[in-house]
Amino acid sequence: MERVANGIWKLRWGEPEKHTPTALREFDILHEALELLPCKGESPIDPNDINITTTKRGLQIELPLQEGEQVYGFGLQLHRVNHTGRKKMIRVNSDPVADTGDSHAPTPFYVTTSGYGVFVDTSRYATFYCGTNLRKGDSASKKNERKTVGTSEIELYGYQTAEGNRTVLVDVPSAAGIDMYLFEGPELLSAVQRYVLFSGGGCLPPMWGLGMWYRAYSAAQKEDVMRLADGFRKDRMPVDVFGFEPGWQTRAYSCSFLWDEERFPNNQAMLEQLYGMNYRVNLWEHLFVHPTSPMYEQLLDFSGDYEVWEGLVPDLSIEKARKVFAEHHLDTFVSRGISGFKLDECDSSDYVHSNWSFPDAAVFPSGMDGEQMHNQLGTLYQSTLLDPFEASGRRTYSQVRSSGALASPYPFVLYSDLYDHKDFIRGVVNAGFSGLLWTPEVRQASSIEDLIRRIQTVVFSPMALLNCWQIPNPPWLQVEGEKNKAGEFMEDYKWVQETCRELFELRMSLVPYLYTAFARYMKEGVPPFRALVMDYPDDEHTYNIDDAYMMGDSILVAPLVTGTREREVYLPHGDWRDFWTHERYKGGRAYTFSPDLKHLPVFVKDNTLLPLAKPLQYIADDAEFELTVRVYGSSPADFQLYEDDGFSLQHRQGNYNWICLSSRTDGEGLATRRGNFAGSKYTISSWEALG
Amino acid sequence: MERVANGIWKLRWGEPEKHTPTALREFDILHEALELLPCKGESPIDPNDINITTTKRGLQIELPLQEGEQVYGFGLQLHRVNHTGRKKMIRVNSDPVADTGDSHAPTPFYVTTSGYGVFVDTSRYATFYCGTNLRKGDSASKKNERKTVGTSEIELYGYQTAEGNRTVLVDVPSAAGIDMYLFEGPELLSAVQRYVLFSGGGCLPPMWGLGMWYRAYSAAQKEDVMRLADGFRKDRMPVDVFGFEPGWQTRAYSCSFLWDEERFPNNQAMLEQLYGMNYRVNLWEHLFVHPTSPMYEQLLDFSGDYEVWEGLVPDLSIEKARKVFAEHHLDTFVSRGISGFKLDECDSSDYVHSNWSFPDAAVFPSGMDGEQMHNQLGTLYQSTLLDPFEASGRRTYSQVRSSGALASPYPFVLYSDLYDHKDFIRGVVNAGFSGLLWTPEVRQASSIEDLIRRIQTVVFSPMALLNCWQIPNPPWLQVEGEKNKAGEFMEDYKWVQETCRELFELRMSLVPYLYTAFARYMKEGVPPFRALVMDYPDDEHTYNIDDAYMMGDSILVAPLVTGTREREVYLPHGDWRDFWTHERYKGGRAYTFSPDLKHLPVFVKDNTLLPLAKPLQYIADDAEFELTVRVYGSSPADFQLYEDDGFSLQHRQGNYNWICLSSRTDGEGLATRRGNFAGSKYTISSWEALG
Repeated sequence: MERVANGIWKLRWGEPEKHTPTALREFDILHEALELLPCKGESPIDPNDINITTTKRGLQIELPLQEGEQVYGFGLQLHRVNHTGRKKMIRVNSDPVADTGDSHAPTPFYVTTSGYGVFVDTSRYATFYCGTNLRKGDSASKKNERKTVGTSEIELYGYQTAEGNRTVLVDVPSAAGIDMYLFEGPELLSAVQRYVLFSGGGCLPPMWGLGMWYRAYSAAQKEDVMRLADGFRKDRMPVDVFGFEPGWQTRAYSCSFLWDEERFPNNQAMLEQLYGMNYRVNLWEHLFVHPTSPMYEQLLDFSGDYEVWEGLVPDLSIEKARKVFAEHHLDTFVSRGISGFKLDECDSSDYVHSNWSFPDAAVFPSGMDGEQMHNQLGTLYQSTLLDPFEASGRRTYSQVRSSGALASPYPFVLYSDLYDHKDFIRGVVNAGFSGLLWTPEVRQASSIEDLIRRIQTVVFSPMALLNCWQIPNPPWLQVEGEKNKAGEFMEDYKWVQETCRELFELRMSLVPYLYTAFARYMKEGVPPFRALVMDYPDDEHTYNIDDAYMMGDSILVAPLVTGTREREVYLPHGDWRDFWTHERYKGGRAYTFSPDLKHLPVFVKDNTLLPLAKPLQYIADDAEFELTVRVYGSSPADFQLYEDDGFSLQHRQGNYNWICLSSRTDGEGLATRRGNFAGSKYTISSWEALG
Repeated sequence: MERVANGIWKLRWGEPEKHTPTALREFDILHEALELLPCKGESPIDPNDINITTTKRGLQIELPLQEGEQVYGFGLQLHRVNHTGRKKMIRVNSDPVADTGDSHAPTPFYVTTSGYGVFVDTSRYATFYCGTNLRKGDSASKKNERKTVGTSEIELYGYQTAEGNRTVLVDVPSAAGIDMYLFEGPELLSAVQRYVLFSGGGCLPPMWGLGMWYRAYSAAQKEDVMRLADGFRKDRMPVDVFGFEPGWQTRAYSCSFLWDEERFPNNQAMLEQLYGMNYRVNLWEHLFVHPTSPMYEQLLDFSGDYEVWEGLVPDLSIEKARKVFAEHHLDTFVSRGISGFKLDECDSSDYVHSNWSFPDAAVFPSGMDGEQMHNQLGTLYQSTLLDPFEASGRRTYSQVRSSGALASPYPFVLYSDLYDHKDFIRGVVNAGFSGLLWTPEVRQASSIEDLIRRIQTVVFSPMALLNCWQIPNPPWLQVEGEKNKAGEFMEDYKWVQETCRELFELRMSLVPYLYTAFARYMKEGVPPFRALVMDYPDDEHTYNIDDAYMMGDSILVAPLVTGTREREVYLPHGDWRDFWTHERYKGGRAYTFSPDLKHLPVFVKDNTLLPLAKPLQYIADDAEFELTVRVYGSSPADFQLYEDDGFSLQHRQGNYNWICLSSRTDGEGLATRRGNFAGSKYTISSWEALG
């Protein structure tokens, strides 16, 4: 048991594989930040309680799991939050239809309510059995318990949960050795923090990345793009990022990585026009390289042995391949002002009508096999596409459809082609356990209600994205796809547009608060969005909550889905304030709320200072925010507001400030700036005392 | 390349694993039958065209797949018939929600329209990539083909199918060596026949097994059982087999294998009463052994290291464990007249709300691991429960929820807790490719129409089963579950009951024809139910038909599902006759039929002799069938009708007959018996000339 950092312990067994998440990592452990997190200084699990064996199938690890201990993590799991009693396979997959562990971003990391974390350093499709089975003979003592006969499947299968002290069994295929990392708490949240800091800390998006996003119709041509861009500004609908879907390229399946001059003649001029209107531009792509791409010949020797969609699969773990890929993106896109990319199709598919991607048995020039490459592809791709931004000294905030272990430093947000709204909310709850970011993007809507309920969720998420790739006009003008394509607008579109504008503006008002939460993510490893059990691990009522989450340290969000007029919200201990009415609620119990369509249940911790900005239409590099500080309660804690230039990498050289907001008894407040950033992004216009 | 039988070739590579389907097989290859099948006498694939490699992940095999060649098989696949371009993992699973290969009965065997079969002898979760990908660089020549940009997912994913000459890539985890068997055709069907004969031939059920089955309410007590049993006879609803669901045991999850004396006092007397009414009795169970079972202590040392539902998982590949299990079943059940069992839960589950079964990493005393045991559990269980019947000299026809490779000799029919009617029909189409039997059982019905449409399918299937475990009264009295439980019957139940009776009687009339199809299955390896492509491999129109099938050599069945008023039926070349109206249809084209609720599209090949029996209420050991022979066409081929005592194992000693039915020009016919069975099961009462 080797101590690798404060509160982090490494257990090596045998000879680990060459290609693992830590072997492929590019960010260093944040030792200094880890030193600031208090801990006991001893491994959270006695190494004698860990059994490791190898067989011809690979390697198996058995770790203790006490009665009542709850298990969380395993990456972006859309089907379940609490994994106790479940089996999870860590395999990247694009459209998991069931709770099997398959995910856009599976991660061999879990934390428990006993306040520790376990990371198994493998790129394999490892399976975690979280207390699913008892050992032979363990039930013999219970033989006289009488149970009634079931006449429904639920009754029958109710018999099955293993009870008592169990184990977490980890089944790692092919490996003959392994490194495991154990993260001390003492709490669940601090164990997660340690994992994020071990990964290199959380990412810090540019401030514009926290504004509104709009991705346009896939078949859009230049005129369509400009019509939309003009429309948003004219209609005062805040939008920061404008996204191009597949149609911008000459070939998309696989990709040419070249502008289509037919649909987009003079595309650089069009881009300059968009930049002039203060839009950031994001381009869709995936990494399978079509024969017509200028990168094709250079990548041929550095690609896997099978094609996907007629294209090469570049081995981005090889420096040369990565350089070809990154340089093309720097020269052709980033140096010409492109702000980010949407990295699609880097997962794999077994569940859609037509499965795709390369075989698990594929061979890559680096020596990685297809299985390892599948689980690493998303992070390798993120890492490669971060290079041009690092080279240009600007941050990006981008999208990716696959991620995994140690990915928290990458400024990429996960998304999915799945679309169940409850699953999407669960994604926000779940991603934080593994240091991941997820957007419950709005694509289509079955009704006006559905559109608004989905936008309410997405504005309280890491990326406020409307992905309108299937409709030429904004959904607030027409939710029905066919009518949208025909240019027929809804009768009551004005009301819908107004409601959407209010939600977009709400998002814009939250940007400084949210940006500060991301700064804590970067520096302390605290996920900006997280499950209630992370903040309240001693409260059993939070264990299975998969439809409400914390945004930052003070705001609890409980989204509604279409068709539901009311919902229950459990408020943990302490006092809470309704975000809209300021009404006070005692915590430690559940309430039923039935807000109208314009509102969703949102609560602020009492005795909180909450800075809200006057909404901007967009966040230019020189944007300044005019803040109102809401003062909840009679003795609010100080609030540390993070400030830097909002777009460059200068903060790494210490060019940032912490502004300490304090309330005074006279109702006014005090803002104390400290730090090395010479500019000023914030002015405080008022303190709003709410009693 | 070793010739192991006529038309069967074995390729060994490296050192195969110890626990494989052939290593665990119990039936011998039927060499004599294989000698009768003509073939070229050379391997259908040149061994130089097969590439085998090993990596730390296991072993990979690459086999050629020509452009246009279609791939079928892989066991009971409910989601797809034609696997060309798809990836299939051979993993047993109870509730596969998507087309991944997971199945109640996955089988590492495929056949193609080029007329050969491939069996990979492994119990591992092998994955077959059936022409999914091209090799790197293969698409470079197509770079100038222009495609339009998709704006829907279907358009986008339409890009993906690999075209041209490809390969079947088989990815076998953990193995360092392998045996592969190649089966010559020359046709697809003869390749399947060879595989079945290699497995030991098809099973021959007792004749009563082909009658009607009824499984009763799980919570039924003795009185409920007798009320149902009396009712069927009183209402003249033919039923041969009466099934008891979990409630008969003292403990069901896991199992005690003991009668519950509270619900069933004097159970032997009850059984005798049922036998006296000519019912056969079938008992539900699974193989996880509860601590209260009398087998528990004896099996403790011969079980895997993890429990399932508090019970032991016996290692039935060990002779001692198998003996304990078989002897308990012989002494307690079979010697007391029980005719068969329903072997539940022997698959595994990853997709239901609560996954269960033992880990893949479990260790069994024989040396098998959990992965291997999962894929073999179903066949080991069938094999064990066949022992008491072999010992008693009587056949069984039973049910099982998991099966796999080389399983055709076991007289067990697969069923599922899934319930989509189209999937269930697809199961009938698909199972035959791998020598398996499947029942699209009727459980609940959403309406009278649904009930009748499902019964129509099941009476044209290997087992005509109504599994009414959730309702206390027959579904023809009330289809709605709650009302059924409350004893409220439908207003029009008489009409429904009458319609069901007609269908049950139709089944009973088909028993001699069907029994003969099973005799061909046993002796020649021809699956009694099969996809149209098996009989018409040169007809491209049959390649993707997943909703119609052959029953025996002469009958084509095209079931309807509820909510559809009409359906298309493709009739292959040759003339066909409507089963109901005798109308003649030219083959080689599709027709649309819209039969009323009492009928489904069924067709008989023209120039066929079809023996139909006067329906019996049940098939007692001494049952005799009165036949009418339908004479379709002016020059019908002879029909060979199989005859034996219908229940014992005497046929193995040659005690059976073939009755050759021939039509004469005067309209009458000729029946010529040859063989050593001294009894007479059939009398021919008339020849019905249909022109």
